[in-house]
Amino acid sequence: MNIKKPYLLFLGDSEFAKTAQGICHWRGQGCVAQFRLAGCQVDLGLPEASMQEAADRGVKTLVIGVAPHGGLLKESWLPHLKAALEAGMDIASGLHTKVADIDMLQTAANVHGRQILDIRHPQKTFAVGDGVKRSGKRLLTVGTDCNVGKMFTTLAIEQEMHKRGMNATFRATGQTGIFIAGKGAAVDAVIADFISGAAEWLSPDNHDDHWDLIEGQGSLHNPSYAGVSLGLLHGSQPDAIVLCHDPLRAHVVDLMHYPIPKLQDAIDTALGAARLTNPKVQCVGVCVNTSKMSAEQASDVIAKISRETGLVCVDPVRTGVGVIVDKLATL
Amino acid sequence: MNIKKPYLLFLGDSEFAKTAQGICHWRGQGCVAQFRLAGCQVDLGLPEASMQEAADRGVKTLVIGVAPHGGLLKESWLPHLKAALEAGMDIASGLHTKVADIDMLQTAANVHGRQILDIRHPQKTFAVGDGVKRSGKRLLTVGTDCNVGKMFTTLAIEQEMHKRGMNATFRATGQTGIFIAGKGAAVDAVIADFISGAAEWLSPDNHDDHWDLIEGQGSLHNPSYAGVSLGLLHGSQPDAIVLCHDPLRAHVVDLMHYPIPKLQDAIDTALGAARLTNPKVQCVGVCVNTSKMSAEQASDVIAKISRETGLVCVDPVRTGVGVIVDKLATL
Repeated sequence: MNIKKPYLLFLGDSEFAKTAQGICHWRGQGCVAQFRLAGCQVDLGLPEASMQEAADRGVKTLVIGVAPHGGLLKESWLPHLKAALEAGMDIASGLHTKVADIDMLQTAANVHGRQILDIRHPQKTFAVGDGVKRSGKRLLTVGTDCNVGKMFTTLAIEQEMHKRGMNATFRATGQTGIFIAGKGAAVDAVIADFISGAAEWLSPDNHDDHWDLIEGQGSLHNPSYAGVSLGLLHGSQPDAIVLCHDPLRAHVVDLMHYPIPKLQDAIDTALGAARLTNPKVQCVGVCVNTSKMSAEQASDVIAKISRETGLVCVDPVRTGVGVIVDKLATL
Repeated sequence: MNIKKPYLLFLGDSEFAKTAQGICHWRGQGCVAQFRLAGCQVDLGLPEASMQEAADRGVKTLVIGVAPHGGLLKESWLPHLKAALEAGMDIASGLHTKVADIDMLQTAANVHGRQILDIRHPQKTFAVGDGVKRSGKRLLTVGTDCNVGKMFTTLAIEQEMHKRGMNATFRATGQTGIFIAGKGAAVDAVIADFISGAAEWLSPDNHDDHWDLIEGQGSLHNPSYAGVSLGLLHGSQPDAIVLCHDPLRAHVVDLMHYPIPKLQDAIDTALGAARLTNPKVQCVGVCVNTSKMSAEQASDVIAKISRETGLVCVDPVRTGVGVIVDKLATL
């Protein structure tokens, strides 16, 4: 699945657009315009464009970068999406609704020779993982829970590595990441038998000095999703892991009865499991999200975690990830 | 997915029929007849029956209990399968080929009001696991690898428990197990996000004295399938695990470069992971397959494993699983 850039970001009539904001933040140069309907409360600061104007400005793909309640497509969006196909753009969607199953849109896509890419419904089949060691270097972000900044951290490390002229590629494993990279594998959407196989496919053999920076998913301590996290960890064969953590979270997201693990337990569990496919794996640091703390609180938390784990600890936004990349550069 | 018994076991022209043999061994009373084509080298010792005869004897489902090379359905089988539907039987298949996608057969099923159950292609969708503790007791078999006797052990424990009048249900998670139980969840075939959810669905709340005996899959030490094993372990919330092991296996099946883990490591890893959803989990024994050993070799291996792990060790075939059930009866 290759999503052609540049993008028109379709915001519909949404109140929130986390996915579109993520794409815009990390790949702003690949976003030509936004398209908003009456009632939309999000503004990405991009120029507005009609479907025809967007196509005229070279847009290749309309990205549905919003998730309405329930993840379903709204009826009122249909004529606009049809117009996008007619104007010569592909559609990429992360909705639960399979856009390609909507006859009117699939017919328009066929007539105009366009593609509809439903990234939650991957067409690709993967091989079973074989655990064979691959060339090149790999980093995987792991977490004390879902939604603690694994994608952000991975992209921040890529940005810092590129700034230093290092050879590195972000590898996307979730919806927003796939829109950002334009490709990837939604590992939580593959058939269970092929999780590690999908992760192996995602970061193939590479040059010895090349880093694959793999977006983590879920957490080994989250009883809903740990299977995905373990398959991704095994298939990624990371040389380095970075633990991502939200210091303000008291319990696993959506599961009040599960506490967040201790950081050292989370590190030990991840390293123990990762050694199966890469005995040399090491944890190179901890990344925290301190956006809801004062500068002083943040600095205290970072110092405390660093002291407790014996690792560098950073907030990718507040402090950058330079000290983590310093360490990676020595591996 | 409920597969109606009794069965006609369809053997085609096969050389092997491991699935059919398993069904016949564990649920012989539910197998009325076998159906063989010229060249078939398997004989289950069941009466032969034509499709009409089988239906007349009360068979509800023809089970395709063989796996030809590649798992594909053979063209030469089609008229016989059609005849089964016409005679009023359902078809249940574990082939990779989706039988319901074969127009001629699906049409016949529609005309005659029959079902085609493709157990490798589950229609059911599951919820995301929530890790909420369920009532009743649960045992899960885990392994040092795939294909080390987890299903056999689980069924042997069920048989022994039933013999003692204990309240217990085998819960199937793989193809052969599902045919044996007539229902279950093929956890390796669900979407990765829902592995633990499928396992939770499989063993719902039950009476305090009831044991769900859950068939394990894969191994936490197998880099191809560990994600499935972990999701199944978390969703099962076992009170007790039994480790299954093949003492003659030198490396992970199909992966020459991965050694079989040490038994104590396998036990510790499984218990460590299982504690997330059931802190009281314990390992109640080790089951080995000594079928290729002499009586003396077998007895030596069993004694050695028991000494090394401090747990009871049995071969379900050679010694039975009585001592394991003794232990379970105290929990």
